[in-house]
Amino acid sequence: MTFPEIFPIWSKLRPEEQEQIRNHLMFRTAKKGAVLHNGEADCTGLLLVKTGQLRAYILSDEGREVTLYRLFDRDLCLFSASCMMRSVQFEITVQAEKDTELWIIPAEIYQSIMEVSAPVSNYTNELMASRFSEVMWLIEQVMWKHMDQRVAAFLLEEAAIEGSNELSITHETVANHLGSHREVITRMLRYFQKEGAVRLRRGSIELTDQNRLREIAG
Amino acid sequence: MTFPEIFPIWSKLRPEEQEQIRNHLMFRTAKKGAVLHNGEADCTGLLLVKTGQLRAYILSDEGREVTLYRLFDRDLCLFSASCMMRSVQFEITVQAEKDTELWIIPAEIYQSIMEVSAPVSNYTNELMASRFSEVMWLIEQVMWKHMDQRVAAFLLEEAAIEGSNELSITHETVANHLGSHREVITRMLRYFQKEGAVRLRRGSIELTDQNRLREIAG
Repeated sequence: MTFPEIFPIWSKLRPEEQEQIRNHLMFRTAKKGAVLHNGEADCTGLLLVKTGQLRAYILSDEGREVTLYRLFDRDLCLFSASCMMRSVQFEITVQAEKDTELWIIPAEIYQSIMEVSAPVSNYTNELMASRFSEVMWLIEQVMWKHMDQRVAAFLLEEAAIEGSNELSITHETVANHLGSHREVITRMLRYFQKEGAVRLRRGSIELTDQNRLREIAG
Repeated sequence: MTFPEIFPIWSKLRPEEQEQIRNHLMFRTAKKGAVLHNGEADCTGLLLVKTGQLRAYILSDEGREVTLYRLFDRDLCLFSASCMMRSVQFEITVQAEKDTELWIIPAEIYQSIMEVSAPVSNYTNELMASRFSEVMWLIEQVMWKHMDQRVAAFLLEEAAIEGSNELSITHETVANHLGSHREVITRMLRYFQKEGAVRLRRGSIELTDQNRLREIAG
């Protein structure tokens, strides 16, 4: 799988634009847990995931986290290059959730092409609209759902991503995804266990009744 | 004030694009309280506020509301034309908060220009990034702040918008802005009154100590 094969609008670039990207493209591997982009500290560039999984999240002053969205194979992370858009007034952190291979397009290269290319600019629009939609989904969850519903929905999503009912995940990690506290999550999970929906072990959560979890998620 | 004077990228449009917009532009007035765009029901088009004030909000299944952002003189509302971007997977409602005069650019006209014009597409990007930033601010408020902090911040914002410490606003309306319940807001406001920060009357809230409110807002 080469960059031109998975960069969605490669064929819409002019030859000189393709050349420019080729000359500045970087390939990188990141171990699970590595932070690839850290808020306002850097303007990393656009990240195109070849294989692996990334997580974009925000941090509170007290160090609480909440996941905004995830990026999988062939997904492109725009906000790691947010310096190129002056109207972006927020900062995210991007971390590898699994060992990840990715390409980095330097922000200034992408920006210089976007400024003159309607296809690239329109593509960027769609990309931002996708992330915006994910964040709007999060707002609706946070505003209208109770924490038990959000935990149940999160476990179902994790199981779908992993293709397994056996999740190697700590209560702390669940809390960091949902912007909650470990104690709150532990209380929820114990309640789920009493309901027969999950089985808890040290460092892992097994989904034993997805239907029950779906009921709780509402 | 004419449309070309306040549409920020008028001078970057080609003459035929200007002509196209001129031929399809609509001018409208909306009374305070009028709903200008209603979720997925319609694809109204881009709204450019000449004078007045609009509010964009989302609704829960149970009819609870939360304000996403406001639009003032010369602001442009993009998501009332969200049908033109297929990646926008959420629906907002736009309501006039004051008597408002506005122009409407039909979505299909704007879209056809945006597809070929890098300046228009880049401008749309910046517009979306601005709204995205406002929604991210909301997420941070909802995730990390307590309701008393949010109510205090909201009252200060209102006073700044109105240029007055005397706000003609009901507890219900405050609740609808913040995605809360009237009873919760009433409880907060009574606490603020006891602190000497506000004085409550039927249908109005007077800010009597902005500094105290700023302390509460944190």
